[in-house]
Amino acid sequence: MNIKLGYDIQFELPAPVAMVTLLNVHPSRVADLRGPDNLRLEPEIPAEEFIDSFGNRCVQFLAPQGNLRLSNSTLIYDSGVADPVNLHAREVPIQELPHDVLRYLYNSRYCEVDRFSTIALELFGSLPRGWSRVQAVCDWVHGKVSFGYQYARPTKSALDVFTERFGVCRDFQHLAVTLCRALNIPARYATGYLGDIGVPASADPMDFSAWFEVYLEDRWWTFDARHNHPRIGRVLIATGRDASDVAMTTSFGVANLKHFAVVSEQLPEL
Amino acid sequence: MNIKLGYDIQFELPAPVAMVTLLNVHPSRVADLRGPDNLRLEPEIPAEEFIDSFGNRCVQFLAPQGNLRLSNSTLIYDSGVADPVNLHAREVPIQELPHDVLRYLYNSRYCEVDRFSTIALELFGSLPRGWSRVQAVCDWVHGKVSFGYQYARPTKSALDVFTERFGVCRDFQHLAVTLCRALNIPARYATGYLGDIGVPASADPMDFSAWFEVYLEDRWWTFDARHNHPRIGRVLIATGRDASDVAMTTSFGVANLKHFAVVSEQLPEL
Amino acid sequence: MNIKLGYDIQFELPAPVAMVTLLNVHPSRVADLRGPDNLRLEPEIPAEEFIDSFGNRCVQFLAPQGNLRLSNSTLIYDSGVADPVNLHAREVPIQELPHDVLRYLYNSRYCEVDRFSTIALELFGSLPRGWSRVQAVCDWVHGKVSFGYQYARPTKSALDVFTERFGVCRDFQHLAVTLCRALNIPARYATGYLGDIGVPASADPMDFSAWFEVYLEDRWWTFDARHNHPRIGRVLIATGRDASDVAMTTSFGVANLKHFAVVSEQLPEL
Amino acid sequence: MNIKLGYDIQFELPAPVAMVTLLNVHPSRVADLRGPDNLRLEPEIPAEEFIDSFGNRCVQFLAPQGNLRLSNSTLIYDSGVADPVNLHAREVPIQELPHDVLRYLYNSRYCEVDRFSTIALELFGSLPRGWSRVQAVCDWVHGKVSFGYQYARPTKSALDVFTERFGVCRDFQHLAVTLCRALNIPARYATGYLGDIGVPASADPMDFSAWFEVYLEDRWWTFDARHNHPRIGRVLIATGRDASDVAMTTSFGVANLKHFAVVSEQLPEL
Repeated sequence: MNIKLGYDIQFELPAPVAMVTLLNVHPSRVADLRGPDNLRLEPEIPAEEFIDSFGNRCVQFLAPQGNLRLSNSTLIYDSGVADPVNLHAREVPIQELPHDVLRYLYNSRYCEVDRFSTIALELFGSLPRGWSRVQAVCDWVHGKVSFGYQYARPTKSALDVFTERFGVCRDFQHLAVTLCRALNIPARYATGYLGDIGVPASADPMDFSAWFEVYLEDRWWTFDARHNHPRIGRVLIATGRDASDVAMTTSFGVANLKHFAVVSEQLPEL
Repeated sequence: MNIKLGYDIQFELPAPVAMVTLLNVHPSRVADLRGPDNLRLEPEIPAEEFIDSFGNRCVQFLAPQGNLRLSNSTLIYDSGVADPVNLHAREVPIQELPHDVLRYLYNSRYCEVDRFSTIALELFGSLPRGWSRVQAVCDWVHGKVSFGYQYARPTKSALDVFTERFGVCRDFQHLAVTLCRALNIPARYATGYLGDIGVPASADPMDFSAWFEVYLEDRWWTFDARHNHPRIGRVLIATGRDASDVAMTTSFGVANLKHFAVVSEQLPEL
Repeated sequence: MNIKLGYDIQFELPAPVAMVTLLNVHPSRVADLRGPDNLRLEPEIPAEEFIDSFGNRCVQFLAPQGNLRLSNSTLIYDSGVADPVNLHAREVPIQELPHDVLRYLYNSRYCEVDRFSTIALELFGSLPRGWSRVQAVCDWVHGKVSFGYQYARPTKSALDVFTERFGVCRDFQHLAVTLCRALNIPARYATGYLGDIGVPASADPMDFSAWFEVYLEDRWWTFDARHNHPRIGRVLIATGRDASDVAMTTSFGVANLKHFAVVSEQLPEL
Repeated sequence: MNIKLGYDIQFELPAPVAMVTLLNVHPSRVADLRGPDNLRLEPEIPAEEFIDSFGNRCVQFLAPQGNLRLSNSTLIYDSGVADPVNLHAREVPIQELPHDVLRYLYNSRYCEVDRFSTIALELFGSLPRGWSRVQAVCDWVHGKVSFGYQYARPTKSALDVFTERFGVCRDFQHLAVTLCRALNIPARYATGYLGDIGVPASADPMDFSAWFEVYLEDRWWTFDARHNHPRIGRVLIATGRDASDVAMTTSFGVANLKHFAVVSEQLPEL
């Protein structure tokens, strides 16, 4: 299956502003690309691409005053296989975890693991360890939190989600990630494209999506506390400790969003 | 000058518990070592040393039930020169920052940059940019926050420090780091040894210390919102986004501290 | 001048739910009424009117499952005089405050006075005491906080407003009230009708409004950090420590709002 | 049984400071007094006694610069009967609650009812209503929170206690009060004397104590999430929404505590 990917994001900048973007597909998916994956900047300005400490593809530049347009359009091959499920995947004892996985056990801005240690044990401490416990976390968050765009706010943390029980997809994942970490299960936040492939078309405008990954057995696995069933056609952009690490655009100054459109569509077979 | 370094930390573990430690001197100081710098574990148990994503030397192991002792004693050469001061060091435009420095502009658990953006601008936005502005942040925190061991708590964030105005050395640095980041100045948290060298002996028992580093001009510089004057004999152990990244010991389970002693003393010249 | 007042509020209740309302004009305005001021309940159900500990007129009832309509329509005489200004009004030393005013110096749910004591002194501690200092608080909040309906949320406190700098009218008043109390100036939250009388018509639908009152010299005075200029035609409904004390409707169970309309219009002179 | 009551509290005031105290026994216990219950102020200064909006006996005064001593010593008769238990006491439907009880259902500074509504239902929503449900809340808090003086801090709220699970007696009661209110059960905070009568002597110095009261059936009943068993010899001083309403001393300025002693001892029978 081929998926058409792209976005058109426009800002109005009252003054020059430095930006860092995470708007290219993740290195793990570069081999699947069927076209160039270039962030196009208008006006054309010098920009530097680099890989951040989490392994994501970033672009860093200084945008001049005025209108700024970030756009892209490409194709990617996708297996069409839904998120894998492995009911036998074990939780890995911490002393056996790969070193670079350990950091996904710690606190981060929106994941206050230190405030959830007892809560997580009370809710999930007695469950059998492994895949099913992570799924239980996912089910709990999915069942207890209600979705609503009006409940989004940039400072909302896992504890806020736990007490308010409303949020957008990022909030669902932050709470699930935090509960996993509080159970000593490495978990990280993921962002990317998730089109309505294999599911009924949503009435909401297409947006980037968030999900999360959990380290079990010997690798990272995809979970999604918002949708909570295996999906087809996720295209990963970035992973990090939480949304603070993987904002699509980080502006170090005032940037007024004027237009925002994302595309992620299965191409018809020829 | 040679400095004698060491510690003796003892836990009682009611059950086996995985641990990660940051108890070796930082790679940048390894060349200065005048003796072996080995974390000694009693009982002797297998342990793996590794470098984390921030460049620090970590040790990962599973401690058995019972008593656990972490100890070390070594010598390190130190120039005896106080923390350098460079009043001409510029703030670097974000688009010119090295890629691996960018992450020290973002939110972290105890540094809620997103909640300080306006506050920081109101307090420091009109000051001349560069070293003196960072020093102004340092002076402000040093002057506005009072020290007291009784005000320590593990969940205390920069916003808590800002409103409560009491804390321990970690709290001073968290607030200063957060204010710098909110001004778009990269700042990171640092821990290490800081003995009473060149200053009157403190009445408090020796402990590890925290300070912070700021990226100006072309490198990281040491600041210390707690002591707020250049000090001799800091021996860096680790840097990270905040205290959550660089805990001396992280225990993934119950570990009751039974004994804690740190040594950091200038050796008499022969 | 006569003002037409009224509302039409409709809920759908999936199960019976107890409610307490603050939907009658304040006792201090009863003498100005030019018509009956009865909360009309549909269906007709038994209800008890009482005066709460803050002196407000409340109604308490059990609403049955199904649709519930709360409505009212009345006339009130208003002097047409704008909020009084008394630049000579003194701050009253605490030991001289009337006893029942003291409670408006303390913490409440959305007014964390204990977290603002130093902040308030830093911002306003050196200003001359009296009316002008309260006005300075009002000006500061008005100038630093931006209005937006999308920033409303039920759990938002003064500290949230101080760090986020966005909110609705209740948020402006909470921050101003908290800063006043932190300066030892009694301040309380007020709600009522505020039509577009003497000001250009607003594009937003009519709603109830919030303002606040400050005790200076020998009485309570009206301030409004949202609009920040003297207004004509406020009709007070209730005062309390913060929004938690004076919700128009408090539902002790699920109540889905289906319709909400408020009227507050100057009647044409005959 | 007669109980000897008293205190000796000394402050050093760097400048004159207004104070309000709650240091007399509650009006409900005045008839039991066997001696005068006068707050003695040294130096002698004018002071006004009044009853606050919660029904407590307060004293309001301006203390001059220098040393201030607040002391008292009296006798009170006590039945010697432990806190009553009534397993049949019903929860009262909200529409049947006395009007002046309703306010103890709402949010207050340290009792964020709005953040506990779902948590409380998940923990206690399915339990049979009445006394046993309140006891279940009490048992839960008593079992889940650990006591420790080092965990006290003035800004600690019920949500902090819920996540940290450590605190002093005030923290236990705040969490229990909040959970009750979130279940629509009126609950209020209480302070007073609680000597070691009928229980082994505590190793800690005598202090004032906190407990809480719950409205069931037709009256307020005493519960204590800290000790969690019926006690003899409580002498009530004040009730309010939370600790913010009923501080023993509220100082509107700097007051350095120099000495603090409380007495509450059963007198030997003659």
